[in-house]
Amino acid sequence: MPIKQVHSGTARGRGERALLGVIRQRAAAAYNGGLRLGIGDDCALLAPRRDEELAVTTDLSIAGRHFRLDWHQPEAVGHRALARGLSDLAAMGARPVAAFLSLGLPRELTLATGRRSAWVERFLDGLLALAKLHKTPLAGGDLAESPLAVADIVLVGAVPRGRALLRSGAKPGDLLYVTGALGGAAAGLARLAELAAAQPDRSKPPRIPPKLAAQLAPHLYPQPRIAQGLWLQRRGLASAALDLSDGLSTDLAHLCAESGVAAEVDAVRLPLHPAAIEAQALHGGEDYELLFAAPATARVPRSIAGVKITRIGLIVKARAGQPAVTLLTPQGQQPLAPHGWEHFS
Amino acid sequence: MPIKQVHSGTARGRGERALLGVIRQRAAAAYNGGLRLGIGDDCALLAPRRDEELAVTTDLSIAGRHFRLDWHQPEAVGHRALARGLSDLAAMGARPVAAFLSLGLPRELTLATGRRSAWVERFLDGLLALAKLHKTPLAGGDLAESPLAVADIVLVGAVPRGRALLRSGAKPGDLLYVTGALGGAAAGLARLAELAAAQPDRSKPPRIPPKLAAQLAPHLYPQPRIAQGLWLQRRGLASAALDLSDGLSTDLAHLCAESGVAAEVDAVRLPLHPAAIEAQALHGGEDYELLFAAPATARVPRSIAGVKITRIGLIVKARAGQPAVTLLTPQGQQPLAPHGWEHFS
Repeated sequence: MPIKQVHSGTARGRGERALLGVIRQRAAAAYNGGLRLGIGDDCALLAPRRDEELAVTTDLSIAGRHFRLDWHQPEAVGHRALARGLSDLAAMGARPVAAFLSLGLPRELTLATGRRSAWVERFLDGLLALAKLHKTPLAGGDLAESPLAVADIVLVGAVPRGRALLRSGAKPGDLLYVTGALGGAAAGLARLAELAAAQPDRSKPPRIPPKLAAQLAPHLYPQPRIAQGLWLQRRGLASAALDLSDGLSTDLAHLCAESGVAAEVDAVRLPLHPAAIEAQALHGGEDYELLFAAPATARVPRSIAGVKITRIGLIVKARAGQPAVTLLTPQGQQPLAPHGWEHFS
Repeated sequence: MPIKQVHSGTARGRGERALLGVIRQRAAAAYNGGLRLGIGDDCALLAPRRDEELAVTTDLSIAGRHFRLDWHQPEAVGHRALARGLSDLAAMGARPVAAFLSLGLPRELTLATGRRSAWVERFLDGLLALAKLHKTPLAGGDLAESPLAVADIVLVGAVPRGRALLRSGAKPGDLLYVTGALGGAAAGLARLAELAAAQPDRSKPPRIPPKLAAQLAPHLYPQPRIAQGLWLQRRGLASAALDLSDGLSTDLAHLCAESGVAAEVDAVRLPLHPAAIEAQALHGGEDYELLFAAPATARVPRSIAGVKITRIGLIVKARAGQPAVTLLTPQGQQPLAPHGWEHFS
């Protein structure tokens, strides 16, 4: 019947309804605070506090693009999908209020095989563990069968009116800081690729040996810097901020463009992850650390909520014809061009 | 390089940045009201009014599932994606505040061919025209290259605290109403399938002859009942409401389940679309009309904001072992089982 060939997919069939029931139940068990109305009606309802603004972000994860079914365990795919959205909230200094998940999955990923839980259940394990850690209820979403696994994650956060950390406030003379270490995600991904290539069965993601878990964690289980973003927002210290999703070279260029400034980065100051090389720290992306600017007079501590803060450079005036970002090395200075992943190019 | 094979896709390459620039510019030109901060930072910022709650919904549209590249013109795909989300807001009695779009597209859909605009531009034409009509700014989203076209639409709406229309308030004795006509979307889809099959070039969607435009409109360009939902919410007339996305038989069963009641539908009262047969009105789905219950004492008008309102039945007590929905016909009564599209079943 033609209708069936293309029908909306909004209908809740038995299979889909059963899976929705599982998600609804597990979401409520993980964390259920702060919602007026969660999964089950046409919309979820959020009750913002007076004097708060809401921050909203969406992040699309597509199999073969943002993760690979033959490289990544489903728990890591779920964790990473949510971490991307939480990191955007962290970059605004927002506290998480609710997450929404639109999930398109091939049928086989919804079925248990032998004693093994279905892929989707393990994906939810990873996503909901991180959601619980950050007291973020999974408040709704959509579900459809799809030949390709896709997950769009939506995060809603709250921030006192006029207090959000923006990309646009950096001023010449401000100092530049990052949280944590850089390059660990790219180094972890490179190691994961080696493990995957060495697998006897290349169709399945490799099991991570315990001794490599710490090395792979920055890639597989990045920690969004919610506490650090909130701290900066409450103290009003940062003049501009964003999260390092695309790599320092690309993201710092964004911060400069939105603020109308340029920047100098001290190569020797970069807090390299122990497993990373400099190129991974500069261009690797997906570290989900915060990059922020603060006036030179601001008292920025050495660590915030247990995470190290490192001064890596300086905001300077933008000059026509000059590169937005300059890398200072012991050998001299050089332009630092953005080297991120390019879609559609 | 392994990193490139799977790298996040959050990076803004030249191609993606150019497309983001186009979307940002066109979104601002279409409608830009009510936002504190739109596309360009880590999150968009919304400033809810005091005493309002926010309604949030996400709807995933996948090529081959929710639309077909060889059946649907891109303008219709964009319109339909947004209409699904707006209709969820209508069902809550919420006014639209902002839309977000996560878009995964094959590269070729982003490229202009000859004198023809790129698919993505025409998709935006359809989406933004409807957004403008409902004063809904496109406030953010995500963009990625994908082998399969996917669009996740997120709608945020606002409703005075405690005033949202829920699925859960219907009581025995309430009367059941629908807006507009039923079955038009399913009838239009069946006609579209015929046109597509009769095309010389089956890879392209058929051009719709002007004389068929009206007949196909309920499927290609459904009108979300925002004004009617707001009217019901402001008058406080409805005890329960939802939108007919999956078909009356399925959606009414949801309303009954959430309200803990049963329902009787009068077959002779159903406002059939002129092109539709009864089965399409009962099970076809995607009409995006509102279905609502109201106490028998409520003064429900014959039309709201120019759209006809029809009483189609009655809420009754749920009885164990009895069907949730009964269809009354001149020949007698019969259980009306849900017949929606089933994912994963």
